[in-house]
Amino acid sequence: MDAITIIRAKRDGAALTPEQIDWIVAAYTRGDVADEQMSALAMAILLNGMDRAEIARWTAAMIASGERMDFSGLPLPTADKHSTGGVGDKITLPLAPLVAACGAAVPQLSGRGLGHTGGTLDKLESIPGWRARLSGDEMLAVLRDTGAVICAAGEGLAPADRKLYALRDVTGTVESIPLIASSIMSKKIAEGTGALVLDVKVGSGAFMKTLADARELAATMVEIGTDHGVRTVALLTDMATPLGLTAGNALEVREAVEVLAGGGPRDVVELTLALAREMLDAAGLPDADPARALADGSAMDRWRRMIAAQGGDPDAPLPRAAERHTVTASESGVVTALDAYAVGLAAWRLGAGRARKEDPVQAGAGVELHAKPGDEVTAGSPLLTLHTDTEERFGPALAALGDGAVRVGPAAEAAVRPIVLDRIA
Amino acid sequence: MDAITIIRAKRDGAALTPEQIDWIVAAYTRGDVADEQMSALAMAILLNGMDRAEIARWTAAMIASGERMDFSGLPLPTADKHSTGGVGDKITLPLAPLVAACGAAVPQLSGRGLGHTGGTLDKLESIPGWRARLSGDEMLAVLRDTGAVICAAGEGLAPADRKLYALRDVTGTVESIPLIASSIMSKKIAEGTGALVLDVKVGSGAFMKTLADARELAATMVEIGTDHGVRTVALLTDMATPLGLTAGNALEVREAVEVLAGGGPRDVVELTLALAREMLDAAGLPDADPARALADGSAMDRWRRMIAAQGGDPDAPLPRAAERHTVTASESGVVTALDAYAVGLAAWRLGAGRARKEDPVQAGAGVELHAKPGDEVTAGSPLLTLHTDTEERFGPALAALGDGAVRVGPAAEAAVRPIVLDRIA
Repeated sequence: MDAITIIRAKRDGAALTPEQIDWIVAAYTRGDVADEQMSALAMAILLNGMDRAEIARWTAAMIASGERMDFSGLPLPTADKHSTGGVGDKITLPLAPLVAACGAAVPQLSGRGLGHTGGTLDKLESIPGWRARLSGDEMLAVLRDTGAVICAAGEGLAPADRKLYALRDVTGTVESIPLIASSIMSKKIAEGTGALVLDVKVGSGAFMKTLADARELAATMVEIGTDHGVRTVALLTDMATPLGLTAGNALEVREAVEVLAGGGPRDVVELTLALAREMLDAAGLPDADPARALADGSAMDRWRRMIAAQGGDPDAPLPRAAERHTVTASESGVVTALDAYAVGLAAWRLGAGRARKEDPVQAGAGVELHAKPGDEVTAGSPLLTLHTDTEERFGPALAALGDGAVRVGPAAEAAVRPIVLDRIA
Repeated sequence: MDAITIIRAKRDGAALTPEQIDWIVAAYTRGDVADEQMSALAMAILLNGMDRAEIARWTAAMIASGERMDFSGLPLPTADKHSTGGVGDKITLPLAPLVAACGAAVPQLSGRGLGHTGGTLDKLESIPGWRARLSGDEMLAVLRDTGAVICAAGEGLAPADRKLYALRDVTGTVESIPLIASSIMSKKIAEGTGALVLDVKVGSGAFMKTLADARELAATMVEIGTDHGVRTVALLTDMATPLGLTAGNALEVREAVEVLAGGGPRDVVELTLALAREMLDAAGLPDADPARALADGSAMDRWRRMIAAQGGDPDAPLPRAAERHTVTASESGVVTALDAYAVGLAAWRLGAGRARKEDPVQAGAGVELHAKPGDEVTAGSPLLTLHTDTEERFGPALAALGDGAVRVGPAAEAAVRPIVLDRIA
């Protein structure tokens, strides 16, 4: 086996053999295949693709590069959710305790935000005292006690993926559906969940801009999950407009708590329930009633126990940004469009996100929306409020919003899309 | 400017701008663009191509990465030849002094062999005392005194190409016509020749296996030369069968001397004269008569002066290998095929070539052919003799030849092709 033969095979359009895939992923993880060889292979994969068998094997090789968690000793079925990332996507926060309240265990390994999409761990870290890093034993203890745990993935899970992702990030080889799908699924399968629901976002604020691309990514991931014995379902959901009325760390925690309290924005509630039903169904609990668990306070109870188990104080006031700036409507009418990417970029520039993975984030920074597509506004009424601790960030954030991020016009032009666009099983 | 944007542009099928090309070649040479970024770009170029303007600019950027030689002070027109490499291709040895004898100056910067094709410098180094490394001043002095110089290219010529070539070699990105063409032409243009004749080999023993690929490479190189003001012509020549009757260092020098003495194998003489005529024509000397310069000893005189000027003794006996093994015909008939690649591989395994660039070569090793396609043989008569200093190399060399390298059959099946297959100007 040698790297050049494997690179040439993919370059010339061949399918890689299982032995070639196993060898190159392991040798790259060990450092025996150089970065410049793997990046050439990644480009060849991006341009020439991989078939279903290759993708399944590539994923298996990445899983095999590290440790694999096992929750089969728990008395409950396990279910997890993964979102491909969007603006205002705080769904994991109410979803994990909600599903736990309905009888499944939710072992959720999450990441931090990079670029214009927020990270679940960054959001939860705005809760005073809450800790993202748990040992394997701590994770299991929280999961056993509360039914749900959201924490950082350990270094030992799919190290090949960590190394390859960092390489793809600097070599223009991120945008490959086989590589994206195997990256996500290797971590989720190594995490040991029995059922997995994928929330594949589509639209300006998402990685996948078109329904066709999102459908291909979703189908690829569902195939990988199925090939590895994980019951996997994907929902394609709208990310042309931000989810809910907030984008930013503490701002989103507040909204998540509203949902757990039985309130919250309609779209967040709808998507939370849709994903909860899918997770419970895949976990073998089709009769569970997540709407009731939101209404009767049992989901909120799980949330409080889960936060407390990781050192967080669920009653502590959340941080608020020092500075605010409100943008108002210049004319009366209906909000016809609200661009997710522009709002995400503005929240990022206000301090909610990071440019490099070692950057800090501001807990209180972000964008609060006062109107969504379809809502009526009058001239002078507030459209959105920017939050930051750093006043000089307002300028760049307003520039991100530009003239076109929020559009007001006649009601007939309002683009109101359903949240769930498609389902792939 | 940043590397990722440039990689993505080529990945997505765009033409790179002149500014992007200048920037990335210079930044890579400086070390500001990482190997893993350049290899991803090289793979994207291999798969998505470059247009004529991009190739010309890429070549110019590689030339600009180093020094450029200038022979405009010489009282003679300059002409050079480049071969894409083949088995038994000793043509440079008689050609350079022959063209010099006809009135043009030949500044030939050559390389060493890697893999199954031999290197001109390795061949000349089998002449006792001969030195490949000359300073710029020494090179000019030899050229001025003898009209021809064959020496190693200095480190200062197209350093971007040297770095990129080493990278392509380990990342499966060698086989890109734009990258091959710009690599060859950047060195030849930086070398400062006024006219250039390209010998593009086609067949099993050549880099280009098909006439279509060879034609595309030739046309691309002729375009680059033309775009840079060098009078450039390409001949496509046969490399299905080895050139002449020898493959190996001292073996080929001996054959070259036979040609200079007015003898030698017909195909070597024919190709030497064809290339000499093209070089003299491109140098503005269409009335020169190279056949006469071979017949009257003036080419041989130049050869002796050229070898002596670089420390070599043209009268010293050439090294001979310690061991010999002759392969005989098992039946009577006509040689119908003689595979260049198999012969090149056998010569390499006998010690004539190297696997890594730091390996030594054996001066006397190689393959001597006793019959070529179209020649009659009788059962038991010698087909070829293997030469090496290391007896244990016979086994691997014979394995390279296998059963199919030399075929004997009815005369009607003999594949006798002309040497010059096409001409591109």
